[in-house]
Amino acid sequence: MPRTAFANQIAINALVLLGTALGCARPATEPCAPVAIVAPPPTVAAIVTARPTAVTPPPVAAPQPVVSLASWREGSTKQRIQNFVREVSEAGNAHYLPPEQRIAVFDNDGTLWSEQPLYFQFVFALERVRGLLDKDPVLAKKPWAAALKRDGLKAHLDEKALIEIVTASEAGLATDEFREIAQRWLSEARHPRFARSYTELTFLPMLELIGYLRQNSFKVYIVSGGSVQFMRAFAERVYGVPPEQVIGSAMVTKYQLRAGKGELVADPQLAFIDDGPGKATAIDRIIGKRPVFIAGNSDGDFEMLEYGTAANQPSLGIIVHHDDEAREFAYDRASHVGKLDRALAAAPFKQWLVVSMKSDFAEVYAPAH
Amino acid sequence: MPRTAFANQIAINALVLLGTALGCARPATEPCAPVAIVAPPPTVAAIVTARPTAVTPPPVAAPQPVVSLASWREGSTKQRIQNFVREVSEAGNAHYLPPEQRIAVFDNDGTLWSEQPLYFQFVFALERVRGLLDKDPVLAKKPWAAALKRDGLKAHLDEKALIEIVTASEAGLATDEFREIAQRWLSEARHPRFARSYTELTFLPMLELIGYLRQNSFKVYIVSGGSVQFMRAFAERVYGVPPEQVIGSAMVTKYQLRAGKGELVADPQLAFIDDGPGKATAIDRIIGKRPVFIAGNSDGDFEMLEYGTAANQPSLGIIVHHDDEAREFAYDRASHVGKLDRALAAAPFKQWLVVSMKSDFAEVYAPAH
Repeated sequence: MPRTAFANQIAINALVLLGTALGCARPATEPCAPVAIVAPPPTVAAIVTARPTAVTPPPVAAPQPVVSLASWREGSTKQRIQNFVREVSEAGNAHYLPPEQRIAVFDNDGTLWSEQPLYFQFVFALERVRGLLDKDPVLAKKPWAAALKRDGLKAHLDEKALIEIVTASEAGLATDEFREIAQRWLSEARHPRFARSYTELTFLPMLELIGYLRQNSFKVYIVSGGSVQFMRAFAERVYGVPPEQVIGSAMVTKYQLRAGKGELVADPQLAFIDDGPGKATAIDRIIGKRPVFIAGNSDGDFEMLEYGTAANQPSLGIIVHHDDEAREFAYDRASHVGKLDRALAAAPFKQWLVVSMKSDFAEVYAPAH
Repeated sequence: MPRTAFANQIAINALVLLGTALGCARPATEPCAPVAIVAPPPTVAAIVTARPTAVTPPPVAAPQPVVSLASWREGSTKQRIQNFVREVSEAGNAHYLPPEQRIAVFDNDGTLWSEQPLYFQFVFALERVRGLLDKDPVLAKKPWAAALKRDGLKAHLDEKALIEIVTASEAGLATDEFREIAQRWLSEARHPRFARSYTELTFLPMLELIGYLRQNSFKVYIVSGGSVQFMRAFAERVYGVPPEQVIGSAMVTKYQLRAGKGELVADPQLAFIDDGPGKATAIDRIIGKRPVFIAGNSDGDFEMLEYGTAANQPSLGIIVHHDDEAREFAYDRASHVGKLDRALAAAPFKQWLVVSMKSDFAEVYAPAH
């Protein structure tokens, strides 16, 4: 529904004369449109495409600084990202995509924040469940209980034990209860090497990239292996990504009435692991659109990258390569956390852009304050 | 982030002087904001809250007529809906909710369109699978195959058979393939009683209600028992609800490469049934927020209504009651399709608003053209 510049100008003038609040409601999640000047009887088509008028209140966001990717070093990596975004956003460009197709998906661990020496959610789960051992006789009898109690984060635990511990950290809690517990932990816990809160260990260039995409009308999702409830505990504050744009692994939940209030309470059982092909499944199920901007850092992102980039549409897949031992960590093919082997080998053939944290990031984290 | 009227006026004038395109990109799914006038170095907080600037192109939606609920008869039902929407949208009102909390969920079958004499998706599935019997030896051997072949829509089929037929109608197809098949069927099939396409049998007052909520910055979701892929085949065109705001039952899908392109292909197996407590589970998992406007028509919506309305927040639950045999259908407690018993009995105690199609709807469907 394009409009001429003249019609736009009339609408702008009318709005100014009317003293109407400009734009759309602040965190509104639907497109906005000017308030109607006249109200002819609406057609069915007009009804279903109606947009917020935001007559009350005038919750207009403050003017936004243009996100500049200032923490990316100049060079071919930054250039390729900017070129892609410009091409798909530019009317008339052969690669132009309408905004509703500008779906961006970001892995979280290792892509938006660090994941060494251990996935941050594992640290949370190990600490929380260690604290539960004395109160919960069922947990206390688990084969891994003694090692966890004795050695804490240094305990040798196999994958089965880790999954049981992660599920135990959510089990029995309603959504809001878990979110509060996770938020409290995030506000208190500090990373062993950097002595900063975990949410400060988000990559400044990637935060800029999210902002840059959003300013170009991309809808930004997190699609990551972490628990959806854990990630929602900080995604809105840290990334500006609201709960409904966070996709993750999920527990089996049961609907219960607690004091007359309906709650979803987690069973000690995983319903879905959002990793590998599961990421493509979740994107199809929940978003229902093929993403065109895909960012990951490990083999767990392979299918998501392939799903978005192998289709007959403009797309950009990027892989954040951890090659900066001095400022962060250096690992790939041999790592237990964030293993990057198959996707790194495939990158040149699939034209996925490998981002070197050492070379392409002018800053890794925001300066400590 | 409220702004003074004076600051708003300055921003408006500056924008007009700059001749900047007004508002946000048309189907953009993120809030919009004026283009930056000056660009100070952004803070991290500013980066993550950055909003689309929509510098190119100027795809501004046409002015919207105010949705008037014209097809609702005047009376206490309409008044209660309007009061609720006004209260939660009005700054300073004790029941005010910020736009990001204005989540509305609508059941589809029986709430947004008719569902008699048979759920429309069942009609689709029965017709499609009947046509597959000659080509698919596995289907041809099913215990229900002979009855389906002989009697078509009139075949006596138990619930197990119906579920097998619905899953068979999607199985083996990639998402886009299925969507095309469903769209073709929807464009050709006609309802036996009304001789109109099924998507014309959407309730005009409910379409107006969706538009009215959207104009008041509600984010509108479909949360219904139909298959998510089937509903996505028409939800955007008919309701203006994009794929990522459609939640439904879902098949197990497998990620596959087909001719080098990643596809999600359905297995003949249901992964999730979006009904009853499952609706609350899906809302928590996918939206991650408690809805405040909940519309349903059957006992399958009970938990969704309870989940949204029993919390400590302003909310409105409505039940569409099919009591108009002349213009549509009349059924409730004893119906096999859209059974409404428990929720109808609970409505007065839970303060759910029962909408009488006979008394409250001035029109049921849009006039045939």
